[in-house]
Amino acid sequence: MVAYRAFFGHVDECLPGVHFESRQAVKEAGLHKEREAGISWGLDANGERAADAIVLNRGYEDDIDKWDEVIYTGAGGRDRNTGRQVEDQTWDNRGNAGLRRSRISNNSVRVIRGSEGERDYSPISGYRYDGLYRVVDDWTEAGRAGFQICRFRLRRLPDEMQELTSFEQQIRESLTPSTRYEADFYGDETPEQPTRRRAITIERIIRDTAVVRRVKEWHDYTCQACGLALKVGMPGKGYAEGAHIQALGGPEGGPDVESNVLCLCPNCHVRLDRGALYLTDDFYVVDRYLSDSVSRPVELRTVEQHRIGRRFLRAHRRFWRIDE
Amino acid sequence: MVAYRAFFGHVDECLPGVHFESRQAVKEAGLHKEREAGISWGLDANGERAADAIVLNRGYEDDIDKWDEVIYTGAGGRDRNTGRQVEDQTWDNRGNAGLRRSRISNNSVRVIRGSEGERDYSPISGYRYDGLYRVVDDWTEAGRAGFQICRFRLRRLPDEMQELTSFEQQIRESLTPSTRYEADFYGDETPEQPTRRRAITIERIIRDTAVVRRVKEWHDYTCQACGLALKVGMPGKGYAEGAHIQALGGPEGGPDVESNVLCLCPNCHVRLDRGALYLTDDFYVVDRYLSDSVSRPVELRTVEQHRIGRRFLRAHRRFWRIDE
Repeated sequence: MVAYRAFFGHVDECLPGVHFESRQAVKEAGLHKEREAGISWGLDANGERAADAIVLNRGYEDDIDKWDEVIYTGAGGRDRNTGRQVEDQTWDNRGNAGLRRSRISNNSVRVIRGSEGERDYSPISGYRYDGLYRVVDDWTEAGRAGFQICRFRLRRLPDEMQELTSFEQQIRESLTPSTRYEADFYGDETPEQPTRRRAITIERIIRDTAVVRRVKEWHDYTCQACGLALKVGMPGKGYAEGAHIQALGGPEGGPDVESNVLCLCPNCHVRLDRGALYLTDDFYVVDRYLSDSVSRPVELRTVEQHRIGRRFLRAHRRFWRIDE
Repeated sequence: MVAYRAFFGHVDECLPGVHFESRQAVKEAGLHKEREAGISWGLDANGERAADAIVLNRGYEDDIDKWDEVIYTGAGGRDRNTGRQVEDQTWDNRGNAGLRRSRISNNSVRVIRGSEGERDYSPISGYRYDGLYRVVDDWTEAGRAGFQICRFRLRRLPDEMQELTSFEQQIRESLTPSTRYEADFYGDETPEQPTRRRAITIERIIRDTAVVRRVKEWHDYTCQACGLALKVGMPGKGYAEGAHIQALGGPEGGPDVESNVLCLCPNCHVRLDRGALYLTDDFYVVDRYLSDSVSRPVELRTVEQHRIGRRFLRAHRRFWRIDE
């Protein structure tokens, strides 16, 4: 029997935001080696069992998902049929031991969310790869059912760490001791970056993530605020932009998930990003300058599969100090 | 007497595109040490006289300006009163010797354009700092007036080299032999850059250069194509984008000069960049998809001080294979 070799970091072609129909598809993509279990583990370069991926799908009633931070419950002690906790969990379980080892080795762990997870952060069906996290803490405590459970706190790596270069990939592949790789790329301390003094100011960057592409397709490249279906190129193709309601990045940054993204035309995108346009809790679009295209509050155009998180609308209004 | 020390590269606070009313202002900014002469030279770190800046202002009838490449005529041999060539130019002239030294040492030379220069690339009044060039060739030849003239071929450094980091600035300042700096940053060979494999695709970057800011102010942040005056923020401010007619960057890239920039709303900017909107030689805006905002060819809104280069309109139409 050949032992599974743990593989840390992104898997080629599977960038954060990529969607899968089933656990089987997640497994075939090489993101997670198991078909059912939550924890994917294997031998690291030092011959230790370490976890390289987890699935978050409300398997355990004690899981807590706040996107940037996840409290994850270990494996074991549940009744196969009812799924209820009937025994204590232990560190002998290889998944639990693997996640603890990942904390000690400081390696990254891929997080995959399933549709049964925390509503605002989970895909509406199937599974979504949400990038790299680190295990920052582990402990045991009494769970809701009264048995001891193993607990892990995971933190998402900063957005810029979710974008690995092929150069970094090459370095990773050429390194044997995995710890060295982690020291380089996943350490607590980000290497000191010189502040970039730019001749050219970047005023706006339009990002096109897998999540954004999905939202634009759902809406057929039509602006959810003003209804414009911009056509560009030759032959004509639809053009729209994915606008994050709660802006990405920074300590107060929002998540790159469908429920935090609107499909907007460039003009409404600028309006949203600069606080000229906002959404009410009942999904009305308000333009504070009553432009020609949104001259009075209008209902946000939407489609059934696109669930929008009210918490993101509120975060956006709070940022722009809008009382509603 | 203290010898002037040559200073290569950008001068703090003066980024490419910055505008000056007079030669005196250019001098005070530290971009060019002379008040009248075309060539600014001083002692480099090896004690050699090297040129660190030139002014292009059609001082010599033989100058040729193609933006990316400039054929510059050396100093000397002209009649002070008539400005006509009356003698041969020589390499004894310190400006000419300085530019030749800059070729040998491979140091960068700041280029400042005056309003008397090549129409499409020059500011409509005063002077504009246009970034860093290198001297790639020098020779003597007979000028139009029949006398020998010293000639220099300068090439603009790639756009990304026009954006120095403060880190690079620090390295530059700490280095003594100037050649080492040039080897690092100005060599013919760009250091091998790993191709960046990005989880997040950058679909569009909106740059805000000094040139772009000027054009937006001239038009009071109103779209030159559809007339929209977008308001954002609180209190409301105008928002527009600077759209390069002939796109920046690449071997076929256009220049970052006012005559190649339009003030557009984000939607018309996308339309222009993706070939859905183009301009005729008589400055009519044509939307190939007849959108609501530009439903038939309309005259481009313009202001007196904003001169637009037809060559950029043609380059844009050629790129999109539009016969007009």
